[in-house]
Amino acid sequence: MALSKKPVNGMKDILPEEMQIRDYVQQVIKETYRSFGFTPIETPCMENIANLSNKQGGENEKLIFKVMKRGEKLKVAEAKEEADLVDFGMRYDLTVPLVRFYSNNANDLPSPFKAIQMGNVWRADRPQRGRYRQFMQCDIDIIGEPTNLAEIELILATTTTIGKLGFKNFEIRINERRILKAMAAYSGFAEEDFDTVFIILDKMDKIGLDGVAEELEKEGYAKESIEKYLTLFKGVEEAENGIKYLAKTLEGYLDPEVERNLLEIIDTVEGAKAASFKMVFDPTLVRGMSYYTGTIFEISMPELGAACGGGGRYDKMVGKFTGQDVPACGFSIGFERIILLLMESGFTVPTQRPKVAYLIEKGCPAEKLGEIIGKAQEERAAGKQVLVVRMNKNKKFQKEKLDAEGYKEIIEFFNK
Amino acid sequence: MALSKKPVNGMKDILPEEMQIRDYVQQVIKETYRSFGFTPIETPCMENIANLSNKQGGENEKLIFKVMKRGEKLKVAEAKEEADLVDFGMRYDLTVPLVRFYSNNANDLPSPFKAIQMGNVWRADRPQRGRYRQFMQCDIDIIGEPTNLAEIELILATTTTIGKLGFKNFEIRINERRILKAMAAYSGFAEEDFDTVFIILDKMDKIGLDGVAEELEKEGYAKESIEKYLTLFKGVEEAENGIKYLAKTLEGYLDPEVERNLLEIIDTVEGAKAASFKMVFDPTLVRGMSYYTGTIFEISMPELGAACGGGGRYDKMVGKFTGQDVPACGFSIGFERIILLLMESGFTVPTQRPKVAYLIEKGCPAEKLGEIIGKAQEERAAGKQVLVVRMNKNKKFQKEKLDAEGYKEIIEFFNK
Repeated sequence: MALSKKPVNGMKDILPEEMQIRDYVQQVIKETYRSFGFTPIETPCMENIANLSNKQGGENEKLIFKVMKRGEKLKVAEAKEEADLVDFGMRYDLTVPLVRFYSNNANDLPSPFKAIQMGNVWRADRPQRGRYRQFMQCDIDIIGEPTNLAEIELILATTTTIGKLGFKNFEIRINERRILKAMAAYSGFAEEDFDTVFIILDKMDKIGLDGVAEELEKEGYAKESIEKYLTLFKGVEEAENGIKYLAKTLEGYLDPEVERNLLEIIDTVEGAKAASFKMVFDPTLVRGMSYYTGTIFEISMPELGAACGGGGRYDKMVGKFTGQDVPACGFSIGFERIILLLMESGFTVPTQRPKVAYLIEKGCPAEKLGEIIGKAQEERAAGKQVLVVRMNKNKKFQKEKLDAEGYKEIIEFFNK
Repeated sequence: MALSKKPVNGMKDILPEEMQIRDYVQQVIKETYRSFGFTPIETPCMENIANLSNKQGGENEKLIFKVMKRGEKLKVAEAKEEADLVDFGMRYDLTVPLVRFYSNNANDLPSPFKAIQMGNVWRADRPQRGRYRQFMQCDIDIIGEPTNLAEIELILATTTTIGKLGFKNFEIRINERRILKAMAAYSGFAEEDFDTVFIILDKMDKIGLDGVAEELEKEGYAKESIEKYLTLFKGVEEAENGIKYLAKTLEGYLDPEVERNLLEIIDTVEGAKAASFKMVFDPTLVRGMSYYTGTIFEISMPELGAACGGGGRYDKMVGKFTGQDVPACGFSIGFERIILLLMESGFTVPTQRPKVAYLIEKGCPAEKLGEIIGKAQEERAAGKQVLVVRMNKNKKFQKEKLDAEGYKEIIEFFNK
């Protein structure tokens, strides 16, 4: 069979130039998260297919790369449907695996448990420019912390990291699933319609308030509800403090705790932040995953016009595995988008070893070669990056290429 | 469907304690390899199934986790055999993907190209203690260097790394595929029997010289050949220099270049080594992969009684993708075994941030919380690891657990 030089459709090879930036960014992320007391863990890239198809993953469950059974368990001729052939699937995010991990290992973990995960996930999206079917996710999660200390620490850790990478003037948009629900209930939408209403609301940044109204009408919802709903959003825009305005207006629909909780998160983060960004309450923020139960948030970058990470509270997910709910909250950095932005901005990794190239004339006698390699070893031990290569016939071209790779010091060794 | 708390069969969750060591070892490996001018790259974890089934991977090709086709391309009812259902497979090593990567990107890469790869690979081995179906591999390869400079640099880079991790008194066993072949030819084995002979020879460290002789006899090879063959191995043992002895004895069967080449590798590495180990010529070293064409080598650890990494030259593999051979040589560290040895020896990661835990009394007022978090941020910026948690009712137990996690400094904040 012919061998293919290309990576599989929709996935990409990562070349040294990009890898250098990725390694650096990963190191900054891990180092910063560690300073907040998060500890790294890892789970297998595959999960039992039932764990991935439990309705927690929303749309992502349609995009699973499925792994075929092996050996005697695989019965191709007898198979009637896909499910007969599959036992594992590639994870589509790091949250489902984290919750399984926690359920499996809780006895050996501190409480609250603060996890860092950095790993690839896979989604069989239609291949398109700039979006890949294998990509890195970087998540931090706090499991076992019921108070907003979790949100505060997650947002501070993430924004400190993003700030260290040189990003400025971004926003953390924040909302609460309970506010979303209270606004819809107050306006008169039926609870079974909430999800549809939120899917339409989620398009706000693309189609605007009028567009949202139009789509809600198309769905056949009562004019009065739609009007009441829109008035709420306008009210937030005009209010000095949107959260206080809603807390007052939605009295009877919204747990008063939510106001205090959100304001405390925003004030504490604003007071202790170590980067240049703003906390912004955004009642139109929805976030797709159906597992969120409370606070939700997103990083919004001016350079991107899109979210560059997000997260929220999911207090009901551990219970699906163990039968007992444990509070949980997470924040995921949009690693691939960060890398893209850094590459496009011409970012170069700071503080590298000095680079030296040794060119050795061909036919170098063994003894002399030993000396040269010995010298290279000494320079490496002293902190330099030393590349030892044979001298090419076209030495000028070779030296130009080495210079372009950053080898500003080039030493030539002749046999004499 | 019931959710499973366990990882998929044969794969494992990695807890913080182990992750800390893994992260440290990865960093030492990357940092050391970089000092030799190697640059990191990454390929997707999946490859087109044809690339993985091209007979280069030997036994590993039987252990591929196969990924099912998706959408319209998947026709379960019409499928007659496995191949109808599969398009991708999980990589079983990093060498096949590297060679595909090089074939795809050679124009954008320096020559010679020195690659670092660290990534997971998957093999559907029968699950067994201490051996997992997903595991990390760490490979360095040099593509485009025909001379033994490749071997010298690979062995020095790998041994320097192993040395930095604290290992001592290990051995690098080295051999040459051409010596293996010349020994077999000289003894009178037919070329088509070489592979069988080498598979038996490979058991030498388990069954000894007599065991090898016995198995060769069982296969029905001529007594005279077997005797001649054994005499060679005994000759090496008795000789002052095994390589010189063989070069002389195998005259006419072995390219004289091989002697000069191997001796130069051994002498140069011995002269420039930055760790406590020995280079040992071992004519019984076979290494399984069918793609090796020249030098082969292995790390042998006294603590392990088994190889802990290995590699060799594979000059004919790029040609399978591009039609044109390019010299190539690689060395793979047995990452999982290294981690196992370090864990068993009670290894602790050096130079960590000082760890401080803040305990906050429940019901802390917003303003006070802001102050505490602000102080944590300052200490983090100053290089400390600060964990902020709510104070439990059973504070004594909580403090004991924090102490066990390494938080020797604990500060309590009361509401007053």
